[in-house]
Amino acid sequence: MRNNLLKEIKVSTIYSGIKKTQDNEDDLLLIEFDEKSAIAGVFTQSLTSSASVNQCKKNLTKYKEPVVRAILVNSGNANAFTGKLGEETVLKISNYLSAKLNCSINQIYTASTGVIGEQLDPDLVIRSLQSMSPQKNQDWVKAAAAIKTTDTFTKVSKRICKIDDVEIKIVGIAKGSGMIAPNMSTMLGFIFTNANISSDTLQKLIVSSNEMSFNSITVDSDTSTSDTVLLVATKKAKHKPVSKFNDIRLTEFKKNLCSLMLELAKLIIKDGEGASKFITIKVTGAKSKKSAKIIAFSIANSPLVKTAIAGEDANWGRIIMAIGKSGQPADRNKIKIYIGNEQITKDGMVYENYSELRATEHLKQRNIFLEIDVGIGKSNATVYTCDLTHKYIDINADYRS
Amino acid sequence: MRNNLLKEIKVSTIYSGIKKTQDNEDDLLLIEFDEKSAIAGVFTQSLTSSASVNQCKKNLTKYKEPVVRAILVNSGNANAFTGKLGEETVLKISNYLSAKLNCSINQIYTASTGVIGEQLDPDLVIRSLQSMSPQKNQDWVKAAAAIKTTDTFTKVSKRICKIDDVEIKIVGIAKGSGMIAPNMSTMLGFIFTNANISSDTLQKLIVSSNEMSFNSITVDSDTSTSDTVLLVATKKAKHKPVSKFNDIRLTEFKKNLCSLMLELAKLIIKDGEGASKFITIKVTGAKSKKSAKIIAFSIANSPLVKTAIAGEDANWGRIIMAIGKSGQPADRNKIKIYIGNEQITKDGMVYENYSELRATEHLKQRNIFLEIDVGIGKSNATVYTCDLTHKYIDINADYRS
Repeated sequence: MRNNLLKEIKVSTIYSGIKKTQDNEDDLLLIEFDEKSAIAGVFTQSLTSSASVNQCKKNLTKYKEPVVRAILVNSGNANAFTGKLGEETVLKISNYLSAKLNCSINQIYTASTGVIGEQLDPDLVIRSLQSMSPQKNQDWVKAAAAIKTTDTFTKVSKRICKIDDVEIKIVGIAKGSGMIAPNMSTMLGFIFTNANISSDTLQKLIVSSNEMSFNSITVDSDTSTSDTVLLVATKKAKHKPVSKFNDIRLTEFKKNLCSLMLELAKLIIKDGEGASKFITIKVTGAKSKKSAKIIAFSIANSPLVKTAIAGEDANWGRIIMAIGKSGQPADRNKIKIYIGNEQITKDGMVYENYSELRATEHLKQRNIFLEIDVGIGKSNATVYTCDLTHKYIDINADYRS
Repeated sequence: MRNNLLKEIKVSTIYSGIKKTQDNEDDLLLIEFDEKSAIAGVFTQSLTSSASVNQCKKNLTKYKEPVVRAILVNSGNANAFTGKLGEETVLKISNYLSAKLNCSINQIYTASTGVIGEQLDPDLVIRSLQSMSPQKNQDWVKAAAAIKTTDTFTKVSKRICKIDDVEIKIVGIAKGSGMIAPNMSTMLGFIFTNANISSDTLQKLIVSSNEMSFNSITVDSDTSTSDTVLLVATKKAKHKPVSKFNDIRLTEFKKNLCSLMLELAKLIIKDGEGASKFITIKVTGAKSKKSAKIIAFSIANSPLVKTAIAGEDANWGRIIMAIGKSGQPADRNKIKIYIGNEQITKDGMVYENYSELRATEHLKQRNIFLEIDVGIGKSNATVYTCDLTHKYIDINADYRS
């Protein structure tokens, strides 16, 4: 698929010096849109959210139909827990960009990722912005590289689908490798499309797709202060505008948006700090979707389950433990646990045909599948995680020492 | 303090072969009481609790004033997730003991700790019981040794206090080193006193003391299927019976029971799998006691906080993250964080006098103190945990490989 998929979007990256690296990697990404671009977003649930997150949220509530003119992302500094000074920094940078683009400050969106608690220098950012001239020949891989912190590879995903027989393109970039990497933070995602979709419909699209993608992954159960996912529609595609979430013409678009976001989410897990295994956990037979997800996350976040998988040890007692501690309804005598295709439990005890050898064989693979039927109802949920290895400790404990 | 503190209690330990060890360590502990001993207990909240836990709970609800004649504890097999067969095992063993002691089956309490999902052989246990003859010259250290799984040391605590000028003795033993050790499980605690206290008052005493001790510790956030704490009063002390929780004569006893249980709880943390640091986390200024405890546990259970402390890295941004993800009320602009005596934040940002050098100095100690004022209300809570190290991964990932 070609790289400059959405010609109406101008992109620029630069090395500003905010992120300290040996080879002066780009650490600033500026994306500019024309006046008609609609925007929607979802953000961290953290109560100590960053100044940028708070400004983005404010922008989205300012208009009935939110519009974006620029998105600015820096890596190397999260501008989180930086008090009033941090908020002034966001305003100063946003003011500069809004003056340059001759638009309201509420059409400027920023995101910062990196060290928590250190002030971001607004003058350094503005000086860098002055030497940036966004171009239409985008390089999305380069854009994705500029927002990396401890990521070991860039995360880009593209889709092409149709609305009313008109070609619709979707491009997404993301970053993240631990929910918070060492001294750095955050999962960020930015998704762009040429579809002509109203911003309130975009908002519903991003919320529902997010639930099945970025909200279904966990590396270490920790939540960043700066998580941000923005979805922008340039409306350049020549189909009749879509302004209802339930519009049947969106069916294909929804599927593609979902699969793009899930691909990006899975890339984050694959880049999980120290990860050696990609783990899919499917919970079925739960009382509700919410309940299924809580059980799945209880398993996915258990350090004992994660270390057992790292050690390729079919220690299924730990899965029982994690179901139990979730506090969610489950019928002990009906719980069925599968590692790969190997059924382990039946009637509240070990299944007579269970072979630990076969379960261990599956755990030696790179991609691990766990399926758990909790025997209560009909609801399912799937979440994704990685194992907990020595390397995670190396990255997170030994980083500054 | 002398070892056989409570002469009215008969104790015996033996090697039965349930626990596979090279040097045939004791793995079965039998404690016998006369007819008047009152009992109370608290258990795991897990919905997949073990057969023994379920039988203990049943015993306690069977009588208005629960009485105990014997407590039997085995290590090496948790008898958890063993279905109907596992329940029958508990009944068979309890029946044998109740016939021997000529009492109701509901006066027999059992606890099992070890591998999950494997059947415990009742005949092996009964054969071993036949060769045990509990004696009054107790050795509590030996008793504590018989219930160890991956524990690296025995956990015994004793107190002497007074009720009505009569000498009251309290002895406690405990086991536990991860919330679930490799393939093995459980935190167990057994506490004995000669005080003449009614069982309903005992129940209130154990619930309130438990909240500040065993319910205030975490190694890895995982919850066992078999956690059990039992409190037995032989009533041999010659003071007027106590039958009200609020009886002023209990003041000294309460203080001593609490401090004994907290000592045992701290020993479990000190024996935490792979632990190199003992961490005390005090949260103040919270909306309620419950809220303070949720925030404290959010910090204590964060893998990123735990690895930072293992690496002696004053990475306080991770504490901010953990406060934020707790979902509890906190005033971002009033949060004060201390590492040891070093104040780090003020007015929603880094404190001007903060010295990372001094904070790091504190983190080099074995005992780490974190204090966090969330600036909302007047409630406090303190929890205890350990750091997350390479050794934890070694113990939990590489155990069977």
